[in-house]
Amino acid sequence: MYFSKSFIPILKNNPTEAKIKSHQLMLRTGMIKQSSAGIYSWLPLGFKVMKKIEQIVREEQNKVGVQEILMPTIQSSDIWKESGRYDDYGEEMLRIKDRQNREMLYGPTNEELVTEIFRSSIKSYKSLPQLLYHIQWKFRDELRPRFGIMRCREFYMKDAYSFDISDDEALYSYNKFFLAYLNTFKRMDLSAIPMAADTGPIGGNLSHEFIILANTGESKIFTDKRIFNVDSSSTTIDQNSLLELRNNYEKFYAVTDEKFSKKEFEDNVNEENRLQTKGIEVGHIFYFGDKYSKSMNATVDYNGKKEFVKMGSYGIGVSRLVGAIIEAKYDDKKEIMKWPISVSPYDCCVLPIINKNDNSNLEKAVNIYNLLKKSGLDVLIDDTDENLSSKIKKFNLLGIPYQIIIGKNFNENKIEFKEIDREPIYISLEEIIKKIKDKKSN
Amino acid sequence: MYFSKSFIPILKNNPTEAKIKSHQLMLRTGMIKQSSAGIYSWLPLGFKVMKKIEQIVREEQNKVGVQEILMPTIQSSDIWKESGRYDDYGEEMLRIKDRQNREMLYGPTNEELVTEIFRSSIKSYKSLPQLLYHIQWKFRDELRPRFGIMRCREFYMKDAYSFDISDDEALYSYNKFFLAYLNTFKRMDLSAIPMAADTGPIGGNLSHEFIILANTGESKIFTDKRIFNVDSSSTTIDQNSLLELRNNYEKFYAVTDEKFSKKEFEDNVNEENRLQTKGIEVGHIFYFGDKYSKSMNATVDYNGKKEFVKMGSYGIGVSRLVGAIIEAKYDDKKEIMKWPISVSPYDCCVLPIINKNDNSNLEKAVNIYNLLKKSGLDVLIDDTDENLSSKIKKFNLLGIPYQIIIGKNFNENKIEFKEIDREPIYISLEEIIKKIKDKKSN
Repeated sequence: MYFSKSFIPILKNNPTEAKIKSHQLMLRTGMIKQSSAGIYSWLPLGFKVMKKIEQIVREEQNKVGVQEILMPTIQSSDIWKESGRYDDYGEEMLRIKDRQNREMLYGPTNEELVTEIFRSSIKSYKSLPQLLYHIQWKFRDELRPRFGIMRCREFYMKDAYSFDISDDEALYSYNKFFLAYLNTFKRMDLSAIPMAADTGPIGGNLSHEFIILANTGESKIFTDKRIFNVDSSSTTIDQNSLLELRNNYEKFYAVTDEKFSKKEFEDNVNEENRLQTKGIEVGHIFYFGDKYSKSMNATVDYNGKKEFVKMGSYGIGVSRLVGAIIEAKYDDKKEIMKWPISVSPYDCCVLPIINKNDNSNLEKAVNIYNLLKKSGLDVLIDDTDENLSSKIKKFNLLGIPYQIIIGKNFNENKIEFKEIDREPIYISLEEIIKKIKDKKSN
Repeated sequence: MYFSKSFIPILKNNPTEAKIKSHQLMLRTGMIKQSSAGIYSWLPLGFKVMKKIEQIVREEQNKVGVQEILMPTIQSSDIWKESGRYDDYGEEMLRIKDRQNREMLYGPTNEELVTEIFRSSIKSYKSLPQLLYHIQWKFRDELRPRFGIMRCREFYMKDAYSFDISDDEALYSYNKFFLAYLNTFKRMDLSAIPMAADTGPIGGNLSHEFIILANTGESKIFTDKRIFNVDSSSTTIDQNSLLELRNNYEKFYAVTDEKFSKKEFEDNVNEENRLQTKGIEVGHIFYFGDKYSKSMNATVDYNGKKEFVKMGSYGIGVSRLVGAIIEAKYDDKKEIMKWPISVSPYDCCVLPIINKNDNSNLEKAVNIYNLLKKSGLDVLIDDTDENLSSKIKKFNLLGIPYQIIIGKNFNENKIEFKEIDREPIYISLEEIIKKIKDKKSN
């Protein structure tokens, strides 16, 4: 992509309305544009990042055997009345009347609708477990939307649902998601810790939030530092292996403020291991047994008897993760962002010094750009006549992790190659391509 | 995927509520499930087809240089009041009040919102042309939703918008979409004809509908048969080449009933070339100049003067295409569907004859299944104990184009391989894989 042809509307300065760094950076680099309170359009740069996150989330769901469906955004109120949540949900639910005066709503979550789909489709326990997910826009009519896409009204979320015949089987399903979540966040270069959490309006008695550390986080967290060393890389999708993983985490105290008890924290964690900080919730999983299957009469035939299925639900904030990654990776003092290569909007950028009335450097740069594209990399070239220091300043905000700088003394065996926020090195194009591809395949 | 583990709820008989064959087949094969009037959930089989269609649409937009963004579903009424369409649009627009009593709406189309994004981002004609698209859910509150996802309320659509400095440039953009649309439908094995059309509530004076022939279509069409022979395969994204393509089509009379004149039809088309039939609209493109840029004051700087940009818009019904392809490809007399391989939910299926208390055929089938998966194909295996004729009947409806049948006299050099609705042939697995892959890469 040529920068001059791209739709990346950069702002010169930090927008004053933005209070946290992800909101600032996203507006400043033209990733999003607010269309009304708490509702955003995603411009090409932000869209590309979100799509990459979505794809990672999808792949990790598929890996543990979850099947993708897609439920609509607009739901009928009937099923919410059946579950009893229509009145409970309060003003955060966007309620709508259609032209026939039917009560509809914009789905804030999908326990009811997926239960309705399940109960009319699956008749026998032999078809269990069923694990279903979808990635769809949701709406929660926040009273005070703020922090950009971190606490907005229309947001993009992966929500999954499990259906099992027994508590034991259901825990196996729960643990599959537990692993999938760890792997998902790891691929985005985030250390997310699973923490015991409250279940809130979803219900149930078992729940984990996945939290990444960030000073701007809304959740206070209290944990044993050693939890960061738990390794899930050898865990397989096997009931015992998954149980062991859960145990390895649950050995360590890790809670958010809702579940915090000073006494428990001090009794369970030696002083040198205590970590008290802030974090951002990026995923939340729940086990709630027959809460919805009972109220909505979702049963399967089990040897001639009707049994209520045992359910869990599993959410990841796909649009929110874009902001969460920025909160974790953006150094706003130095004004340097660095996207993990797995979600970066481009793999690398080419930054030529362009003098007026002299196209020779641009030509060299375009040549390099074409070769990089041909090798399969996604490249952004800055073909504008801004001076190099402005370009670097701008691209440090854009956060594409690799910069190829075409200066005055261009030497094709010693091209200036810079990993963002590091010293440049001078290597051939072949070596540059290899370095980037190695990083991508990690 | 194992059929016994899949979420493909098949109905034994045609659902009586469905009047047209796409609606019947989609319900019967568990592709969709209605959640309320004109609103559907997409189950795994239908979801996979829609995602493949979406990806083809995306790739062809990218090829002609359109950049992807994503606008929200919920819009503020303010911009619609600015353009003057808030009152015009009528009851098809789903109007919503949020908790602060602000007037919002579920976007039925996005001319206003994209114009707002454009005008606040692009200042100079030097950044033109700008071609932007998004693929997003829309809502039109149809009085009588019917025909399943063909005329529903919540639907998935690709809509693109072009911004240019002059009529000439804008026509060049228009023609890029013209070509992209032909290529898009061709990849789905559909012959879509571009037809002069009315512009309706979008406005403007130049418009084409892309129509595929189908007896169940809602549009009457009148055309010169020879239009089906126009070839776009050598057209390039060059102004003259695109003009020539347009001319090659416009030599032939081709209109829908809105634009039909008996006299013109008879004067322009020899009797032997006249074709009068029905069709389904799968795409619609519009050029409307400064209709929205004037009312919404979207200008760029052109040598010191403010000029209103010239705009067009370009829609493809992504969810509707799933139904349209079924209308074109499903033989409901024989009860045989055949998906074009490019959008088929799976590349092939493995159908073993399984006798109770004898797993040997299932084992052979699983082995073949694993080898097919290893070669990169997406396979559905029917591991249930239904008898073979029921399996074949079911899979003829599912429409996966290639069936591998593992019968009693299995011979690994002569495996029964059947392209749906053709006679079986007997070849090795290697040859089977080659045949399917060749077809996929076409």
